[in-house]
Amino acid sequence: MSQCPSIVAICGSIREESYTRTALKYVLEAAADEGAETTLLDLREYDLPVFDPDVDDSEQGDAIEVKRLVREADAVALGTPVYHGSYSGALKNLHDYCGFDEYEDTTVGLLATAGGGSYGSTLDHLRITVRGVHGWVLPHQVGLRAASDQFEADPDAIDGRRFCDPDLQARVEQLGHSLVEYASIDPSVSSSRSATATD
Amino acid sequence: MSQCPSIVAICGSIREESYTRTALKYVLEAAADEGAETTLLDLREYDLPVFDPDVDDSEQGDAIEVKRLVREADAVALGTPVYHGSYSGALKNLHDYCGFDEYEDTTVGLLATAGGGSYGSTLDHLRITVRGVHGWVLPHQVGLRAASDQFEADPDAIDGRRFCDPDLQARVEQLGHSLVEYASIDPSVSSSRSATATD
Amino acid sequence: MSQCPSIVAICGSIREESYTRTALKYVLEAAADEGAETTLLDLREYDLPVFDPDVDDSEQGDAIEVKRLVREADAVALGTPVYHGSYSGALKNLHDYCGFDEYEDTTVGLLATAGGGSYGSTLDHLRITVRGVHGWVLPHQVGLRAASDQFEADPDAIDGRRFCDPDLQARVEQLGHSLVEYASIDPSVSSSRSATATD
Amino acid sequence: MSQCPSIVAICGSIREESYTRTALKYVLEAAADEGAETTLLDLREYDLPVFDPDVDDSEQGDAIEVKRLVREADAVALGTPVYHGSYSGALKNLHDYCGFDEYEDTTVGLLATAGGGSYGSTLDHLRITVRGVHGWVLPHQVGLRAASDQFEADPDAIDGRRFCDPDLQARVEQLGHSLVEYASIDPSVSSSRSATATD
Repeated sequence: MSQCPSIVAICGSIREESYTRTALKYVLEAAADEGAETTLLDLREYDLPVFDPDVDDSEQGDAIEVKRLVREADAVALGTPVYHGSYSGALKNLHDYCGFDEYEDTTVGLLATAGGGSYGSTLDHLRITVRGVHGWVLPHQVGLRAASDQFEADPDAIDGRRFCDPDLQARVEQLGHSLVEYASIDPSVSSSRSATATD
Repeated sequence: MSQCPSIVAICGSIREESYTRTALKYVLEAAADEGAETTLLDLREYDLPVFDPDVDDSEQGDAIEVKRLVREADAVALGTPVYHGSYSGALKNLHDYCGFDEYEDTTVGLLATAGGGSYGSTLDHLRITVRGVHGWVLPHQVGLRAASDQFEADPDAIDGRRFCDPDLQARVEQLGHSLVEYASIDPSVSSSRSATATD
Repeated sequence: MSQCPSIVAICGSIREESYTRTALKYVLEAAADEGAETTLLDLREYDLPVFDPDVDDSEQGDAIEVKRLVREADAVALGTPVYHGSYSGALKNLHDYCGFDEYEDTTVGLLATAGGGSYGSTLDHLRITVRGVHGWVLPHQVGLRAASDQFEADPDAIDGRRFCDPDLQARVEQLGHSLVEYASIDPSVSSSRSATATD
Repeated sequence: MSQCPSIVAICGSIREESYTRTALKYVLEAAADEGAETTLLDLREYDLPVFDPDVDDSEQGDAIEVKRLVREADAVALGTPVYHGSYSGALKNLHDYCGFDEYEDTTVGLLATAGGGSYGSTLDHLRITVRGVHGWVLPHQVGLRAASDQFEADPDAIDGRRFCDPDLQARVEQLGHSLVEYASIDPSVSSSRSATATD
C-alpha cells in the first residue's frame, strides 16, 4: 500500500441537503485523519448520461473523468440513499460505467441512509453488485435510520450537522478508518506464496 | 379486473439491439393474445433526468407522463439487462420516480437478460425493490443466459429474432400469460371478508 | 377460496420464550378473527432430522406429517428469528423438506424478529427461497427490531405479552388479515381467460 | 499469516454422493498444493442438533468441537447445495452455532452446486450471512450448474470424479488458491497505521 492511500467517496444522492453526502464527509474526514488523500465524487458536478453500452465513453459526458477517479482510488466509499428498498438509480448509473478495471483489487466500504427504518436490502444489493466487479467489500458497513433525526445543527460541524449519537458517529468514522487500514489487500505482502516471490 | 387488462412493459436497456427489449415484446405479444392492451415503455423515447427528490415532477422532463403510464397499468413487466450482477441504473432511475401510487396493487412480472451466465441476483434485487413499493411480484420470472445465443435471425419474427429454444420462449410467453391472468389480484373478488363487504 | 381458509404459522425458533412465536400467535389470532382456521406449527413438537434428499420421507421422523400440514394450508405464515443476518437453520431445514407440492399457489406471509436492529436481509432471503418453490409472498411483511423491547407483561395478553406500540401490533395483525384476504389468489375467479374457460 | 495456513471446508450436504463435497475436496487439494493444512468438516460425522440459543453448547452434541474447528481456521470454504434458491438448512444450522468469535478476521470462500441452473441467490445469501458475523468473503466465488453433468468418471480423480470442463475446474481450484493467498487479511502488516503502532 502506498504510505498515503487515496480514498474516493461517491454520493448516490443529488439532493442539496443530502444526509448521505454529510455522512460520507465524516467518513472522508476520518480517513484523512489516518493519513489518506480524500476526494468526494459529487454526482451534481458531473455529466453522466444514462449508461448505454453502445456509446463510446468519450461521447458520454464526463464518463472518462469519473472512471479515472474510481480507477485510481486505493479504496472507495459508496454512499446511497435508500430508494424503494435499494440503492439509487443515480449511484447505479455511475456504477454501470465502471467495471473490473475500476474495482478489481479495490477496497470498498458501504453506507446507506434511510428516511425510514430499513437499509439492510440496500446495503446487500450494493455488496452484491460490487462483488460482481470483484471489489473487496469491507465487512464493516453503516446504515443510518431516520436520517434526519440523526443530526443536530452545529455551525462548527461538517455541513453544519453534528451526530446526535456518538456511537453512530463512531460507526461512520470506523468506515473511514477501515478503508485506510485495508486500502491495500495485497497478497504480495501478506501471503506466503507472494512472500517467496518477492524474495 | 377489467375485461381487457392493460399491461405495460418497461425496458431497462437503451441499446439499439437490446435483447431485453426483444424479449419484452414477446411477453407483450403473449399478453395481447390473452386479450390485454399492451404498451412498451421504451426509455429511449422519454427524457428522465437523474431522480432528485428536491425537484418537482413537472420540471423533470417526462416524469409525469412516465408515472401516469405505470400508474394506469393493471400489470407491469420489468425487464433489465444484468449490469454487474444487478439491474441497470436506467431502470432504477425510472423506478425511483415511482412509488406506492404507481405500484400498490399492481401485478409485476420480472425478466432479466445476461450477457454471461448469471441473472439470479438481478431478479432478486428487482423483486425486493418492487416489494418496497408494495407491488405484487409474480412467482414466475424469466432469466436469459448468454442472451445473444438465445435468438436466431428470422425476418418474420419479432425484431427479426426467433428463440432457438422453444422451452425458453414458452417461459417468456408464460410471463405474459400470467400478467394477464393475475392482472387483478383483488381481495374484493376472492376473499370472504370482502365478499361480505360488497353485499 | 374456501369460506373458511386454513392458515398455518411456522415458527423458526425453538426457544421457550421465543418472541417470534408470540408474534405469530398474534398473526393467527388476527386471522381467526377473520374466520380462518389456524394452526401453529411448533418445531419443538416435531422430529425433523437434518434434511437428506437420499432418505425417504417415511424414514425422516415427522416429515410426512409436517409436509401434509403445509400442503393443506391455504396460506402460510413463516416467522423466523434473525440469526447472523438471515433466517434460522431450523426454519430452513423444515423448508428444505417442502417443495412445489407444498407451496405452489400458496399465499405466504413473512415475519422476522431481531434481537438487534436489522431484519431486512432475513426477510429478503425468506422471500427469495419461497419464490423458489413458487409461493405467493405477500408484499406486506413484518420485522420486529429489538424484539424484547417490543412487549410488556400483561397476564391477559397472548403469551402474557402485550405489544408496547399499537402501530407495530397493527402491522402484525395486518399480516393475519392479509393472509385471509389473499388466501386464495385464484385466476379461475379473477381472470378473463378463466372466466371464459368456466363458462 | 502463519507460514502454513489452515483451511477448513464445510460441506452443507449430507448426501453420500454429494457433488458439493467433491468440489470442496478439489478446493482443499488446491489449497494444500499452496502449502495449507486442510480439513474437511463433514456434517455426517458430527452430531449437531437444531440450534437453540437457550441450551449451553456443552449439551449440544458436538457443538464445541465444530466451533473450535471453525474458530481455529485461518480461512474457511463454505459449500452448499442449492435448496429452493438458497443454502441448505444443514449448513445454516452449523452457521447458527458460530459467531464473531469464529468468523471475525476469517477469510471465507463460497461455493454452491445447483441441480438445475441457478446458484446466484444461494451465494448471495451466504455472502450476506457471513458478513453478519464479520467474515471476509472473497470476491471470487464458484457456482456449479447442473452439477451431475460437470463430472465424468475417473478412478484416479478425487471421489472418482473428474471435471469435464477444465475452465470450471480452474475456477474451483482458484478458490483454494485464493483462500491461501488471502488467509490472513492483516492490517498489522499492510496498513500505515498499524505499521506505526507496532514500531
